[in-house]
Amino acid sequence: MSSEENKYIEEINPNHFSVKYDVNSLDFSEKGPFQKVEVYSTKGHGKMLLNDDLVMISERDEFVYHDMISHVPLFSHPCPKKVLIIGGGDGGTAREVLRHESVEKCVMVEIDELVVNACKKFIPQTSISFKNSKLELLIEDGVEYIKNTKEKFDVIIIDSTDPIGPATPLFNSDFYGNVYKALSDDGIVVSQAESPFYEQKMQKKLFEILNELFPIVRMYNYSNITYPGGLWSFTFASKKIHPTKDFDASRVEKSELEFEYYNAKIHGASFCLPEFMLKNLRN
Amino acid sequence: MSSEENKYIEEINPNHFSVKYDVNSLDFSEKGPFQKVEVYSTKGHGKMLLNDDLVMISERDEFVYHDMISHVPLFSHPCPKKVLIIGGGDGGTAREVLRHESVEKCVMVEIDELVVNACKKFIPQTSISFKNSKLELLIEDGVEYIKNTKEKFDVIIIDSTDPIGPATPLFNSDFYGNVYKALSDDGIVVSQAESPFYEQKMQKKLFEILNELFPIVRMYNYSNITYPGGLWSFTFASKKIHPTKDFDASRVEKSELEFEYYNAKIHGASFCLPEFMLKNLRN
Repeated sequence: MSSEENKYIEEINPNHFSVKYDVNSLDFSEKGPFQKVEVYSTKGHGKMLLNDDLVMISERDEFVYHDMISHVPLFSHPCPKKVLIIGGGDGGTAREVLRHESVEKCVMVEIDELVVNACKKFIPQTSISFKNSKLELLIEDGVEYIKNTKEKFDVIIIDSTDPIGPATPLFNSDFYGNVYKALSDDGIVVSQAESPFYEQKMQKKLFEILNELFPIVRMYNYSNITYPGGLWSFTFASKKIHPTKDFDASRVEKSELEFEYYNAKIHGASFCLPEFMLKNLRN
Repeated sequence: MSSEENKYIEEINPNHFSVKYDVNSLDFSEKGPFQKVEVYSTKGHGKMLLNDDLVMISERDEFVYHDMISHVPLFSHPCPKKVLIIGGGDGGTAREVLRHESVEKCVMVEIDELVVNACKKFIPQTSISFKNSKLELLIEDGVEYIKNTKEKFDVIIIDSTDPIGPATPLFNSDFYGNVYKALSDDGIVVSQAESPFYEQKMQKKLFEILNELFPIVRMYNYSNITYPGGLWSFTFASKKIHPTKDFDASRVEKSELEFEYYNAKIHGASFCLPEFMLKNLRN
């Protein structure tokens, strides 16, 4: 934050660039046991949530990320009833998951209550989901939860921050072994998978971890405004369901849900990867 | 540019944000009759060309833009022999166009010799195309050229800067009327069409101009690192050829060309637009 006359936040990327956003005010700032959590009112992008100085969501473009992390697995699965979200403390993923009529229960396991409370107070656009009676919100470590749960889920969504700080254990093979066990026979897991331009090694490692466990593993892409580097990815892994071959586009078209980013064509298109990503994942 | 110890360039976006790139040195800077032209050596993105303080290309990611502006129309057209580029002074588009064996002649009309000369001297990665004998480089106003030319082209590529400064006349209907006349019966024109998040009005206007002239008009997307806002677009307009229905994917697969971004699946996927773009173009 600079002087009062010219307020901005600056997100510094390790790849020799940074992005500055003009802000009106800092609405919330607290350093908790896991990370520093801040909410700003920005000039061009609505409310913005930052964990440890990294932009998590902005009201202006959160629809892109939340559409793509939710509707791709939920429209790939023929009838998702039980959904688990690990992370996702702002509530945006739960909001989109709970729009699907088939969903009977959504468990959300967020390690950091500070994120939930900050969003409840300052970002109702995403935290509105916390009022939904089908949501079971648990404030605990997702790694421990997934190790110990006896429940089976149709869809598990790993809506994590970057693989530094509290999310580090979410990027390893023990964790995904437990995810596999907690999935139903036709279960799907989707995970936040960073930037293909800047995080090729991490993407490849996550892809390999999933390939050792699941018969079907793919990566899919999206682009929003506030994640630096343009193109960003999710992984999709499943015991049975192929994300495009088993996808019934007519279900999206017949659905009464309206989206700002997702549609049946974007679903298929997002799995078409540029050559440099294919080369990285192949080698 | 800040102090010597901590050098950076900062691209300021009118939408309340800016992007800073760490630089090693400023290699070229000159204010010409059309615009200020600069070349920097950056720390994470190779050489970078800026016109009037806006990033035009970086060596790190220029392959995305140049693949998508060139190979989409050239693989849509069954046999492109004559290609016209308006703008494109760095040479990257011509480089990709001239990789197609069917191309017998590529005319490039760049208004600003300063851009060409700066790139010739400092960015051989893109300006290598100026050595190709099939390239006819004209330093003149593309608007006047297209008004007066008697030639017919199979593909015309409008590789322009933003619709401010010298590129402003490239975003109007007189210009596209002349483009139409300079296209062969199965001709295709592709144009740089800005950001769908930030330039919705401009995208809609360009789409409408093209729709008044051409029976087939589509928009397609790509994402690179250095164009702010994540997602960016091109328009595709043609007298006869549909960019996906008439596209023969096997031509790409059989071709001996290798790409870093483009492939047959990306070709089709890039025309699948997110809902907010469809709504904007429909209304």
